[in-house]
Amino acid sequence: MMPGPNSTSAKYTMAAGPVSIHDRVRQAYARQLLYHYDPAFHALFDDTTMKLQQVFQTSGDVVIMQGEAVLGLEAASACMVRPGDKCLNLVSGVFGAGYARHFRYYSGQDPVEVKVAYNQSIDPSDVRKVLKQEGDIRFISMVHSETPSGTLNPVREICALAQEYEAISIVDAVSSLGGMDVPVDEWGADVCVAGPHKCLGAAPGSALIAVSERAWEAMRVHPSPLRGSYLSLLDWKELWMEQRRFPFTIFVSQINGLNEALTMVLEEGLGPRIKRHSQVARMCRMGAKGMNLGLWPASEEIMSTCVTAISVPEGIDAHELVDHMRERYGIVITGSLKELEGRLIRIGHMGHMAQRVYVEMALSALELSLLDLGYPVQLEQGVGAARAAI
Amino acid sequence: MMPGPNSTSAKYTMAAGPVSIHDRVRQAYARQLLYHYDPAFHALFDDTTMKLQQVFQTSGDVVIMQGEAVLGLEAASACMVRPGDKCLNLVSGVFGAGYARHFRYYSGQDPVEVKVAYNQSIDPSDVRKVLKQEGDIRFISMVHSETPSGTLNPVREICALAQEYEAISIVDAVSSLGGMDVPVDEWGADVCVAGPHKCLGAAPGSALIAVSERAWEAMRVHPSPLRGSYLSLLDWKELWMEQRRFPFTIFVSQINGLNEALTMVLEEGLGPRIKRHSQVARMCRMGAKGMNLGLWPASEEIMSTCVTAISVPEGIDAHELVDHMRERYGIVITGSLKELEGRLIRIGHMGHMAQRVYVEMALSALELSLLDLGYPVQLEQGVGAARAAI
Amino acid sequence: MMPGPNSTSAKYTMAAGPVSIHDRVRQAYARQLLYHYDPAFHALFDDTTMKLQQVFQTSGDVVIMQGEAVLGLEAASACMVRPGDKCLNLVSGVFGAGYARHFRYYSGQDPVEVKVAYNQSIDPSDVRKVLKQEGDIRFISMVHSETPSGTLNPVREICALAQEYEAISIVDAVSSLGGMDVPVDEWGADVCVAGPHKCLGAAPGSALIAVSERAWEAMRVHPSPLRGSYLSLLDWKELWMEQRRFPFTIFVSQINGLNEALTMVLEEGLGPRIKRHSQVARMCRMGAKGMNLGLWPASEEIMSTCVTAISVPEGIDAHELVDHMRERYGIVITGSLKELEGRLIRIGHMGHMAQRVYVEMALSALELSLLDLGYPVQLEQGVGAARAAI
Amino acid sequence: MMPGPNSTSAKYTMAAGPVSIHDRVRQAYARQLLYHYDPAFHALFDDTTMKLQQVFQTSGDVVIMQGEAVLGLEAASACMVRPGDKCLNLVSGVFGAGYARHFRYYSGQDPVEVKVAYNQSIDPSDVRKVLKQEGDIRFISMVHSETPSGTLNPVREICALAQEYEAISIVDAVSSLGGMDVPVDEWGADVCVAGPHKCLGAAPGSALIAVSERAWEAMRVHPSPLRGSYLSLLDWKELWMEQRRFPFTIFVSQINGLNEALTMVLEEGLGPRIKRHSQVARMCRMGAKGMNLGLWPASEEIMSTCVTAISVPEGIDAHELVDHMRERYGIVITGSLKELEGRLIRIGHMGHMAQRVYVEMALSALELSLLDLGYPVQLEQGVGAARAAI
Repeated sequence: MMPGPNSTSAKYTMAAGPVSIHDRVRQAYARQLLYHYDPAFHALFDDTTMKLQQVFQTSGDVVIMQGEAVLGLEAASACMVRPGDKCLNLVSGVFGAGYARHFRYYSGQDPVEVKVAYNQSIDPSDVRKVLKQEGDIRFISMVHSETPSGTLNPVREICALAQEYEAISIVDAVSSLGGMDVPVDEWGADVCVAGPHKCLGAAPGSALIAVSERAWEAMRVHPSPLRGSYLSLLDWKELWMEQRRFPFTIFVSQINGLNEALTMVLEEGLGPRIKRHSQVARMCRMGAKGMNLGLWPASEEIMSTCVTAISVPEGIDAHELVDHMRERYGIVITGSLKELEGRLIRIGHMGHMAQRVYVEMALSALELSLLDLGYPVQLEQGVGAARAAI
Repeated sequence: MMPGPNSTSAKYTMAAGPVSIHDRVRQAYARQLLYHYDPAFHALFDDTTMKLQQVFQTSGDVVIMQGEAVLGLEAASACMVRPGDKCLNLVSGVFGAGYARHFRYYSGQDPVEVKVAYNQSIDPSDVRKVLKQEGDIRFISMVHSETPSGTLNPVREICALAQEYEAISIVDAVSSLGGMDVPVDEWGADVCVAGPHKCLGAAPGSALIAVSERAWEAMRVHPSPLRGSYLSLLDWKELWMEQRRFPFTIFVSQINGLNEALTMVLEEGLGPRIKRHSQVARMCRMGAKGMNLGLWPASEEIMSTCVTAISVPEGIDAHELVDHMRERYGIVITGSLKELEGRLIRIGHMGHMAQRVYVEMALSALELSLLDLGYPVQLEQGVGAARAAI
Repeated sequence: MMPGPNSTSAKYTMAAGPVSIHDRVRQAYARQLLYHYDPAFHALFDDTTMKLQQVFQTSGDVVIMQGEAVLGLEAASACMVRPGDKCLNLVSGVFGAGYARHFRYYSGQDPVEVKVAYNQSIDPSDVRKVLKQEGDIRFISMVHSETPSGTLNPVREICALAQEYEAISIVDAVSSLGGMDVPVDEWGADVCVAGPHKCLGAAPGSALIAVSERAWEAMRVHPSPLRGSYLSLLDWKELWMEQRRFPFTIFVSQINGLNEALTMVLEEGLGPRIKRHSQVARMCRMGAKGMNLGLWPASEEIMSTCVTAISVPEGIDAHELVDHMRERYGIVITGSLKELEGRLIRIGHMGHMAQRVYVEMALSALELSLLDLGYPVQLEQGVGAARAAI
Repeated sequence: MMPGPNSTSAKYTMAAGPVSIHDRVRQAYARQLLYHYDPAFHALFDDTTMKLQQVFQTSGDVVIMQGEAVLGLEAASACMVRPGDKCLNLVSGVFGAGYARHFRYYSGQDPVEVKVAYNQSIDPSDVRKVLKQEGDIRFISMVHSETPSGTLNPVREICALAQEYEAISIVDAVSSLGGMDVPVDEWGADVCVAGPHKCLGAAPGSALIAVSERAWEAMRVHPSPLRGSYLSLLDWKELWMEQRRFPFTIFVSQINGLNEALTMVLEEGLGPRIKRHSQVARMCRMGAKGMNLGLWPASEEIMSTCVTAISVPEGIDAHELVDHMRERYGIVITGSLKELEGRLIRIGHMGHMAQRVYVEMALSALELSLLDLGYPVQLEQGVGAARAAI
């Protein structure tokens, strides 16, 4: 019943998240459970929160919601958006596009959108134009690292515009935190949501959220403030932060792993860790180009450093390629989603897997797989180019 | 940063959940992560689902939502209850009382309630009276094992009434599944929600839900069916069950542990496991009585077998007692919640901890702690009475 | 294939060693292997050696031989004893008696012996008498904690006599190091051998040896110094300490666990740890007496604190009792060896298991087992007396 | 204190043993300890023994001595060789040469030797010549896989000669068992010694020994049969096999890991596992040749499949190369020993590490390291050639 990790053939997961994680983090998940009201657990939870603040580079509040990262993104709208609120949704990929549904559900109307092709990133001047034109935009949502496309959006500039136009910003930094610079206070982001299972190097199971004072205020002034719900951020503020009561039972073993992963991030240092992701991403891009594959994003400047999105060459079936790499070479990468399904493959180099050796391993398996499937790649051109990039 | 389990003094968690878990389950949490679309993970997830069906004794659908058990309880209302629906909430304790908020939020009005003292259990004839009288009750919610009170409700009888009066039943079996009989199909329960971190012996982090055809139908006929939300059960039916697409990233390491825990439940056998919980609970009750402590529930027949609720004797402070037991004797038990806070202490004997040796250990620490705090207990009377019960 | 730890019933090992160990140590055994010439492993090995010196309270050399503790004891004779050497063997139990064979094998003749009943300990004045009388004793071997009898010998006094009479002392501190005071330098012990799997709280698999300059000299002046053999201590001195070459492949995972265990010993502090063993041993003795069982050693002053040896009462079969406790109550204790087999049972309270809660658990299971087997013990008298001892 | 496995940079050990091992085996080392006389441990030990017999392909006795593999090799001589016995030592490398010391120590005289250059293997006709000429050779020792040289000796032929000339054969199969064919009964080998930390994929810490009836007989007829010693094989036969008493405390956690490793060997199947080692070795050889490096062994036919021995090219320092690969690329390989030190580097591909992906990783790191150190290798020629070999 554990065909993967127990088999004798090596298997490395370099999908778009989760990816293989470090031993230290894995062993943390095996610790004996504590009761969530055990003072020892409270100490651990507080320590985790404090470390998370450091990684978010914020002196404001951070909340560790007990659900997948998308819970935090939905919660932002559920708690703040009032019926009739005008919202601006920025769309440069599948995840950006998906956020419209929350704005629609909670405001009761379609959001305004700025939309670009899924291999592009949002232009702040377009955002300014819309903000000016609409006048009363109350919320702007944006995706920092649009993982399905392998692209980055200029969050810093857009958050500045949000502040200028007094809109509240909701930032999806799910896949970037821990691998790219996410300076929440500097940006002035209001709600910024990350996941543990991407660049932070832990398992999925938490929604990590930085919340500004403006955002708390927006929740409190909501005509029917959301309390007593799984989607409530206010519960965390009022029960946990103010009264030290958890809204419900906490994922204690998940917190064990998250704490260890954050500890490792801080031990390595944010700067070196961001640089590592950047170098390894560059290496992966060079490798792909070396085997004459096209990168999906329109330009190098907008490429995310957690995942490399590669256009599937003519005549190759993305699913078959991914399956072949996994079954024949033990390396798990992934295709993409929705509109991009079948058009891209993505190699994830996040957290523990953002290392030269793993990228080489993935590129090598990719070369061989392309050859096996009849695509005319010349052996070693990819891996060689990747190495030359170091 | 891990003051609890890493310290040299023994620490056993026998709170109301989570409690200490078995090594096999802990080691499962340490397995290397798989991508949630890895076929090996799909196989594991399917296996987990199938085992969960066996434990729920159902041939119907089961859903493993990615959140604490309360997510499943809220989801039931969020997905099925329409504005204006008349709901019946059965209240025999803190958890039962709490459910009113979901009925209120989603129906837009106060539910009808049948309410008894928090040391009693619901009388089915009262339920019948209300159902008859009201005529158009559409939902009935009930708690099987009301953990804060240590009591059980007659779910079988109430579910039968629900069927007779064509109401949809929502059963909170969070703490009972895996330690008490929860025959979902036999009961005819429509939505039955359990947690992994009580009698199943795993870590918190999943909402385990059995869903009847009637319940799915109620979700589909909702005027605005809930889709694309963390609270949506329909997403699991339509995306995962029908299209094999997960609504979002799955808690892969959590599933590893849950699978192992369910495997152990089935290896032991439901019958022997239920009997074990029952014997150990009896032993714990005898122990409490042996030291002249009063049991909180009004009668033995209505006592839950996952937790023993003991009235705090005159002159003893519940918090001080719990703290003392933990700090001095390394055994973590707990008080109770809300209206019951300060009046009860509870010893959890669930899953792996439902064993003679641990109950003796807890009773022994309780005796000593009472003595230390000045309560006139005679040493060994409690533990002795417990043993005599075997 | 893992009936013990994987079963659902609790099982605690409180035999005479190995006993159940702490999670931190167990997890250390699961670390990925390093090559024994990896500088990281050398650093770990050096750190382990340094910590071992601290626990031995010596500034002299310590060797970590790659075998069970008995390897170190045999090695002492194999390396130092020359044909014709006159040796003095001190016998107060099975282990002491057993050492004669090494003296016999390597000296070619029977050793002189001082022998007392196996529930007594050696009287230093008898040793002095023999040393004086014989004149040319070259080696004296003694057992610090004679585990099969649960007794202690006055090592400090005997080592002083050895120095006075210029004999080389060989001390078996296998079961005492980490739980009792073993100040090698203060004693002036020449070869002192300990095991990781008793009071140190690790798994068996190393022979931990403190070696004095006098002992090294004795090995070097041997007419055919033992080199290139598994029994050679000189190899460790000359190859590892002087040339940083291991004599053969090192038990890398064993060293991981040993390092963690020694780290925990030093974190706790030698003083507190010794006190803990002493208190818990006292508690166990009071418990045994409380149920009217006789302690095997002739007086309390000579009782070891790592194990409590209890005389098996008339009419009870030691094997049956041990088996019953294990099978019915999940607590593993043990009988004794050779001449003592069938006459004693022993409860080990060493390392992690030297805690009140475990001793109570063992006493409770012992009481119940005696009752089950028809011995007239009054429930709770033992456990009660033990508690009163705290 | 754990710079290796806890660091964020990947580290794979592909030395000549130990090498990195599989998760399943590592987790087995973390199991809670059992008492070595716990029936559950006896069952595990028996199961381990039985599985070891299958891997040795023998219906005869196998012994699991509690020490490094060299303990078994020394024990063979210590138990069987009598003063004055004429012994034949076959030398084709460092390990073969080293065995002379045991023959010398226990027989009291220099063994006869057949010796070839260290990149060659023994020619059976030379052995026959000596056997014939000497007439009364009582023991022949040989090394199956001479790891320091990366060569294999024709054990089958030599064992047949031993039988023909009524000599007792002692076979060092330390590094071959579990990766190459070691059919002890078919060969008619008398004492065959293996280690868990090479192709079997476990940690070092056991000497795995198949013993023929002839060998037992030789031990019994020894004028002073070796009993009561760490070097005694007879103790295992007479105490453990005949009386079910262990000679001393067993390495229980080591047995947990060994059992799991043997289980994985049998799950994979001896045939497929041997083939896997062979293919991967071929790939590694092709890789080395692809970068114009010379293989050390004189011909492909005599190359061992557990390790590839590569001549260090002119101008490159072996130590510097090995250090550079480890520090810069996180891959641990090794040089060689004694006479071969500085002349060879060796890549170990044993057990779990005998996989394409790891060999590629090692070759890639080797290529890059050679380049970094100024050796004119053309990038990808090695890895490319290796891949072409698949």
